[in-house]
Parts: sequence; C-alpha cells; structure tokens
Amino acid sequence: MRRIAVEIAYDGTAYSGWQAQANAVTVEGTLRDAIRRLCGEEALTFGASRTDAGVHALCNVAAWDTESPIPAEKFAPALNSFLPDDIRIIRSWEAGEGFHPRFDAHSKRYEYRIACGSVVNPLRCRYVCGVRETLDVGAMQKGADGFVGIHDFSAFCSAGAQSESKVRTVTKCEVYTDAGEIVIGVEGDGFLYNMIRILAGTLIEMGRGAKPAESMADILESKDRTKAGPTAPPQGLTLVKIWYKTTETSNAN
Amino acid sequence: MRRIAVEIAYDGTAYSGWQAQANAVTVEGTLRDAIRRLCGEEALTFGASRTDAGVHALCNVAAWDTESPIPAEKFAPALNSFLPDDIRIIRSWEAGEGFHPRFDAHSKRYEYRIACGSVVNPLRCRYVCGVRETLDVGAMQKGADGFVGIHDFSAFCSAGAQSESKVRTVTKCEVYTDAGEIVIGVEGDGFLYNMIRILAGTLIEMGRGAKPAESMADILESKDRTKAGPTAPPQGLTLVKIWYKTTETSNAN
Repeated sequence: MRRIAVEIAYDGTAYSGWQAQANAVTVEGTLRDAIRRLCGEEALTFGASRTDAGVHALCNVAAWDTESPIPAEKFAPALNSFLPDDIRIIRSWEAGEGFHPRFDAHSKRYEYRIACGSVVNPLRCRYVCGVRETLDVGAMQKGADGFVGIHDFSAFCSAGAQSESKVRTVTKCEVYTDAGEIVIGVEGDGFLYNMIRILAGTLIEMGRGAKPAESMADILESKDRTKAGPTAPPQGLTLVKIWYKTTETSNAN
Repeated sequence: MRRIAVEIAYDGTAYSGWQAQANAVTVEGTLRDAIRRLCGEEALTFGASRTDAGVHALCNVAAWDTESPIPAEKFAPALNSFLPDDIRIIRSWEAGEGFHPRFDAHSKRYEYRIACGSVVNPLRCRYVCGVRETLDVGAMQKGADGFVGIHDFSAFCSAGAQSESKVRTVTKCEVYTDAGEIVIGVEGDGFLYNMIRILAGTLIEMGRGAKPAESMADILESKDRTKAGPTAPPQGLTLVKIWYKTTETSNAN
C-alpha cells in the first residue's frame, strides 16, 4: 500500500464545499470519482482544509492510500483528464505512510477579497465580497493588528464547531489593496469554523466605521460570538498556501 | 417615447451568447426579463455587440424605447436588483431617439487571454484559453502587426457570416503579458463573425512555431478561411471598450 498526496486547486462556486457527502456534489467527492475512474478503487481521501461551499483553493492538499502501480507524479495529469476544469491537480507525489495533510500542516494562509462600490465587476463576482461603501483600509489594518497572536478565538467561531480548544496562533493578518480589491491575508497554525469569514465581516464593519478599530482586543477577550461582526459570504475566501514541516511540502511555500 | 441606453457587463459563461433566443438563456433575454419585471413592458432591446456563448463583456451597450417614467440614471440600480450577479448594469442614461448602440459605435476593443502551462488555474478557467506550450510572444506580435490596417478579412470569418463586405479597419493589434497571462488586444471599426477568435487561434499557432509569423499578409491575401488557424475557444474573449462619436459615449473611453 502506498500513500499518494496531491496539491489541488479549485473554484468552489459549483461545489457544496470540500468534504464528501452522500447527496451533494463536493470537491472531495469529485476527486474520489476521478480516482475511481482512473484506478478502480474507492479511495478514502483526507484533505488539509475542509473548505465551505463557495470557498476556493489554490493549494489544498489531499492524500489517500492506493494499490495502483501508477507512478506518483503521473497521478496529476491522469486525474486531471477525469476532472472538470474548475478542479485541477497541480502536482502529485509519493507521501510517507504517516503523512497526514491536515495534522502535518504547520500553517496556512487564506486571503479574503473585497470589492468596494455600487457595482461589482461580474467577472469578479465569484471571487469577491461586494461592499457598497468605500472602506478605510487603515482602520481595517489596525483591527487586523489586534487579531495577531495566541488567542482564544471563541468570538470568531460559528456555533456547531467541533474543536474543543478555541486557542489558535495567528502569525500574520494584513490588509492591502491589489488590482483594485481589498485583500485580507491571514496566516496561522489553524483556524476555527468560519473564523476567517467572521474576521472579514468584523474588519468590514471597522472599515466602514460601524465598529471601532480599537475594539478587536475587547471582542477577543469577550469570547462572545455576538460581539464580532457578521460572517462574510464564502466566495471572497481562498486558501492560498499550506506549509509543512516534513519534506512533503506544498510547492506553494 | 424615450430611448434608454445602458452600459452592461457580464460573465458569459452561463449564457448562450448575447442575442435573445426563444429556447435559450441569453444575456439580452435576461435583460429583457428584468425590464419586464421593472416596467411591465416588452422591451425591444438592441445591443452594440452580439457576443457568442461564453464570451464576456465589460461594457457592451444596449438601448430600448420605453414609456416608463423612471429617471434614466435610476434604471441601472433598479435593473441590477432584478439581474443575477453575473450581469451588471454599469450605468444608464437618456439616449437621443436616433441613438443606435451598434451603428453609432465607431470602434471597439476586444481582449483575448491565454494561459500557458500544463495546468490552468481553475479560478481563471472561465476567462482564458489554456495552451500547454510556452508561446513566443515576439512571434505573436510580429503576426499581429500584419493584421493591422484596412483589409478584406475573409480568411478570418467563419462560414455563415451575414456581412456582405468583409473589409474592416483594424487600428491596433497588440500582444503582451499581464498577470502571467498573454493578452491579445484588438481595436477596430467592426469585426466579422468569429474574427478575433480565429485571429487568436492563428497567433497561437505562430506563437508555438506551427505557422511562420511572417505569413499573416499571405493569409489575409488568400481570403481563404482554411489558411488561418483554428477558431480559439470563446471563454478567452472579452469585449472591453466601445467608443462612440456622439455624446452618448461609453464611460469606458
């Protein structure tokens, strides 16, 4: 038995999220279908990040065990021939038998993109959250600065989250403009359910002046979900990088 | 009776082209539905460019006559509330009664985008043509230079085209890289059916060395469709600008 790992990019628009489900089209389910067609095997894939419906990824990582004799690096082009254009395997490799895409990842970077103005460019509508007002990027950065560190992020976690400990380490939280859009870039060792979308909703409120930029510490301290902003919509969010401690690193490092 | 004009942007992925059809979802048909819901009128819209299925626009222009008392500039936000996110009215204005979006346009700019490499980023797959090989942009520009001028473009026109004269004026044809993609930008007074997609298919062949970059003049001279390259796929093409001679100019000028 060998363990194959892949780096996988997708446009999440058409999918009910990453995780395989019985009655919905998901990215993982579509990947499993492709493996079945290629190898004739029911693969028990496991992914690094269980992205929500509508959320995108440039480099999620998945792994599974296989009896197939196909050379590891050939899985990428072979699976791509069975996958739709909105899901692409970037590369494939032979992972150590203990490799786990999620538990071995030591940090991840997500980006949340916002387009300000009365009209969102329809060629960008799948990839940004539209906000009517002009936002104060300086105020958003000030709020973002307060998000960095080791904190109990309970205030930024949707109900129904399975994690026991709500303590995470956020190593970077930056707000900048790129191609006319506002980008919130967040890096950390792990993220709670909806944590980045709630962060985005909170920073948008700070950017429009509805919440003081200085209140981030108080919101964290409260551990109260109702003190943070609303959960921003999924389509603005993209998983852009994963770093591994082992030699099975993502090539996006 | 007043004539209302709108500048309209859309992601063409989900539509069977611009032009209203009885049994297909089109951009114009969707616009007419929105006008019906807003004004209760069956609007006989006419557009500047009848883009094909899968082709995008940042600034197509449409006009129609209406009895509605709605202030001209309010049509944009009002129609947007009835339109899907992948179709947006950029602005609306009161056009002169003789204004015709197509016949009054004196030039248009289209851009065709190409992504080279074995894997196309799935977040770009709706907006580029993927080409496996690296292309020689210099050779493509050399070919493009030969496309500029007043020519009979019969070699770059798909069968079934309705135009009688195949003579058009191309004022600019440039090839450059932007955000890691190759862009073919073409401006002219009018374009034959599939003309830019056949140009793109021809320049791609020149870029990969399958056709000499010097052969553009011979291809034009031949007036023979079989001498040009294949018709490149629609999703790489976007209408980006229209210029008008009247005061009803597109704001993208």
